[in-house]
Amino acid sequence: MSPGFTGSPLDRADRVRNDAEAYGALLGDWRARILGLDGLDPVLAAEGGLVWHSAAELSGSEELILLGLSDGKPHFVALAEAEGDVFRSPAIWRALSMLPAEDAAIYGTARSLIEWHNGHRFCGKCGHLTTLFRAGWGRKCGNCGKEHFPRTDPVVIMLAEYDGKALVGRQSRFPPGNYSALAGFLEPGESIEEAVRREIHEEAGITCGKVRYVTSQPWPFGGAQLMIACIVDAVDDAITLDTDELEDAKWISKEEAQAALENAESRTFNAPPPFAIAHSLLKHWATT
Amino acid sequence: MSPGFTGSPLDRADRVRNDAEAYGALLGDWRARILGLDGLDPVLAAEGGLVWHSAAELSGSEELILLGLSDGKPHFVALAEAEGDVFRSPAIWRALSMLPAEDAAIYGTARSLIEWHNGHRFCGKCGHLTTLFRAGWGRKCGNCGKEHFPRTDPVVIMLAEYDGKALVGRQSRFPPGNYSALAGFLEPGESIEEAVRREIHEEAGITCGKVRYVTSQPWPFGGAQLMIACIVDAVDDAITLDTDELEDAKWISKEEAQAALENAESRTFNAPPPFAIAHSLLKHWATT
Repeated sequence: MSPGFTGSPLDRADRVRNDAEAYGALLGDWRARILGLDGLDPVLAAEGGLVWHSAAELSGSEELILLGLSDGKPHFVALAEAEGDVFRSPAIWRALSMLPAEDAAIYGTARSLIEWHNGHRFCGKCGHLTTLFRAGWGRKCGNCGKEHFPRTDPVVIMLAEYDGKALVGRQSRFPPGNYSALAGFLEPGESIEEAVRREIHEEAGITCGKVRYVTSQPWPFGGAQLMIACIVDAVDDAITLDTDELEDAKWISKEEAQAALENAESRTFNAPPPFAIAHSLLKHWATT
Repeated sequence: MSPGFTGSPLDRADRVRNDAEAYGALLGDWRARILGLDGLDPVLAAEGGLVWHSAAELSGSEELILLGLSDGKPHFVALAEAEGDVFRSPAIWRALSMLPAEDAAIYGTARSLIEWHNGHRFCGKCGHLTTLFRAGWGRKCGNCGKEHFPRTDPVVIMLAEYDGKALVGRQSRFPPGNYSALAGFLEPGESIEEAVRREIHEEAGITCGKVRYVTSQPWPFGGAQLMIACIVDAVDDAITLDTDELEDAKWISKEEAQAALENAESRTFNAPPPFAIAHSLLKHWATT
């Protein structure tokens, strides 16, 4: 299975973002579809997928972002000033477990873009107002002219491996019994491999060596993130916990990982949900 | 050889960034070293490495960023309002070819952080002034309290492979005869694998399949970037060039790559410099 939030069927159509004539034609296309949202949360149709509105339902004052094309039909989302705290919204986790993969990918892109716009209404360089341009894939400062683009924050997420076991940890805000792969933001001046080793050392006090990249996933909560999943060889297994970051960490066997992924009665911890890359990573590790 | 700008010997000492007492001790440490810079460019010592000043040479009004510790000695860089356009500074390319790898990694981190601070003096959310906090690893808005952190923009850089040959391209701003791997910013809502396939399709019109991650590198020019190097299987080899992005693209053999990397007389193009990850990627491809 592909990681969650990947596999969008939309063509991002980068070529029309700077082409005023082509973009104007898309804005006027009667087949245009507008993503239905409740604040930042997805709205689910009776049959389980995303809800799309027609352009006729727009008031005309909305600022639109071009999500992409499908069979030539433009798909937009309207900018909204909503804020979301996903950790306080159990409804969204239920919705995500019901959304088809392709719809989750579209929703993730839309949510990331809206949050990015809301966090960049002013220019970081000079403090003046910015306005949306490039079909919603940028903002430009009305004063200094600086162009701002919606990018993503890389996060490394990894399993340290030692003697056939893998290291998982839990934060105090996790539901009881839940464990996941350790993770942290990559900082300026380091490679993926260096960030993986630094984070494991900071959070669990374990020195690591060779890093193997496994897979990646866009993550649309708390801003746009790029989750980069790796396995890394640990040099020792003595855990020294950073209790500011983690409440607990432990070494698990492949059998324990399998039981957790299958939600078996015999499981020793609860695994992350299938749409989280930690799930894909645990599965990859447990089955190879 | 490790990719350029990796291998910093400094301990980033994340633990002291939020610890006012420990950080105050570092600021008052007479052994503190301050990185010498000329604007945003490195200053080279006679023996070829970076120049460091003592804390006694500070005026006291500088805003400092903690780069990290080495043998317990704090290493700082002072925030400067300099701007740099690396493509117009041949001097920096010469300097980079002379800097030891460890020094290049320290310099890259410092430059990325300074550029990040300069681009975030105002809060993107509310437009008010921000101030430096967390030992220079963040800025906080004086009005709305939003915390901003120095992260990095992921860029995919890749060789499409078809029938034993790899695709390289050149932008019109490159020096004559220079070719490199194709590259582009990863966008919100896509994985590394999806971004690799999209960029190759956008720039060269080639459909690609399976992506193999090779290595990564921090890149300190034009803001902090994370270069993610991959090889991807092309489904066909007919190039349709996006002339807004590329001036030319062509398929090269492993022999051609080797000749270019060795700067041989017989080379059919000029390879990127050793500190660029495109160099590491070409070398990896040509020798495996």
